[in-house]
Amino acid sequence: MGSRGQPEESRAAILHAAAQEFAAHGIAGARTDAIAREAKVNKALLYYYFRDKETLYDAVLDSAFSGLKASVFRVLESELPPREKMLAYVGAYFDFVAANQVYPKLMQREMMQAREGQSQHIDKLIKNYFQPIFARVSELMRQGIAQGEFRPVDPAHFIPSMISMIVFYFSGAPVMQKIVGFDPLSPQRIAERRAAVLDFISAALFQPGAKAVRSNVAQPNVVQPKIVRPKVVRSSVVQGARR
Amino acid sequence: MGSRGQPEESRAAILHAAAQEFAAHGIAGARTDAIAREAKVNKALLYYYFRDKETLYDAVLDSAFSGLKASVFRVLESELPPREKMLAYVGAYFDFVAANQVYPKLMQREMMQAREGQSQHIDKLIKNYFQPIFARVSELMRQGIAQGEFRPVDPAHFIPSMISMIVFYFSGAPVMQKIVGFDPLSPQRIAERRAAVLDFISAALFQPGAKAVRSNVAQPNVVQPKIVRPKVVRSSVVQGARR
Repeated sequence: MGSRGQPEESRAAILHAAAQEFAAHGIAGARTDAIAREAKVNKALLYYYFRDKETLYDAVLDSAFSGLKASVFRVLESELPPREKMLAYVGAYFDFVAANQVYPKLMQREMMQAREGQSQHIDKLIKNYFQPIFARVSELMRQGIAQGEFRPVDPAHFIPSMISMIVFYFSGAPVMQKIVGFDPLSPQRIAERRAAVLDFISAALFQPGAKAVRSNVAQPNVVQPKIVRPKVVRSSVVQGARR
Repeated sequence: MGSRGQPEESRAAILHAAAQEFAAHGIAGARTDAIAREAKVNKALLYYYFRDKETLYDAVLDSAFSGLKASVFRVLESELPPREKMLAYVGAYFDFVAANQVYPKLMQREMMQAREGQSQHIDKLIKNYFQPIFARVSELMRQGIAQGEFRPVDPAHFIPSMISMIVFYFSGAPVMQKIVGFDPLSPQRIAERRAAVLDFISAALFQPGAKAVRSNVAQPNVVQPKIVRPKVVRSSVVQGARR
């Protein structure tokens, strides 16, 4: 155990390696051997921190989803007006997923397990993460609608639509690459996607007319999303050119 | 073989049962025993029609994706003006998925396989189905933008956003049910979702001002999408109530 002196570092390395392994192979297919090797710890240490594979998987989910919740709650609990808050929420969600691309893969697997009625984890995820976020964003939408800032859409449909635009982009990137002929996960394309998602949601949600949000007033402690209208791509890429 | 007299019916029954089995368990986990039993044919007949599990899987994908292509091409090759054509395309895509809920499951599995570099099927699906559809919809978007009907969005981002709103809704329904407390797959909720998706896309894509599409002029041979603004749900459901 070369890593005895740094228990926190070892634990973090195990969690990181485990997230990749579970995302790629699911809980049934994941091998703790591979996780220990990738984390550069021996298996005894892995089992010292995490009793068994289920416990480790639980810790991986908890770590991924608590990170997301912390990111978006920082925005949702701020004092921003509805439009700015919505864009900052979407931006924070997007940035979290872009920086943690293991997240959409874990989420997709959990969704499949839930469909097959096999997930013991999904109820906890829903209670601790999905539902609190959903309730806050619904509340924000009701405020924006009441103030005449948002169109009268149904949060129960609008919120999953927003999330799908983010999660599906990252989980579908390898297929998309073959269709459009560019790498959707290059930094430039990710920045373009972020702008496209914010633009799409702004146009779909905000009542036309008021332009306040475009002024992009700086707010303390909240990262302001850049609101860039994406340029139309007229290149051969869109015509269906392959790599 | 009680089904010797109806070869087409047997083949269709096998394909139908196989689609369910592959959607639930993937190609590795699917059992031809279970498929034959579910299709009420014996295994010899199954192997008579489909040489092996790979061939059967190929036929299932082909059948699912060619059905989608036929549905949306009927609209895309029509003479509708851009706005009507776009709504009819989204409506046809939505209706196909709603009527073939095995489709988003197969698509999700193929996307995961593609991510792991393991799919031998995805290149064929892309060439035969995804790319032709993508090229047609891109062309429609360029027309609409050129005519000043659509906002100048990038088809390479807008098209996957549209698809994600449809596919993700159906594949994520079991999770969504636990968050919102209602069954997203009830006929009423599916109708509500369809209206919400058409509304979302109209608001995000169409240049504000022109209202022509709302008049809903009847077109021969093309089913007109109903354009219904969804009502705001203010019930306890959105507050995060559980079943």
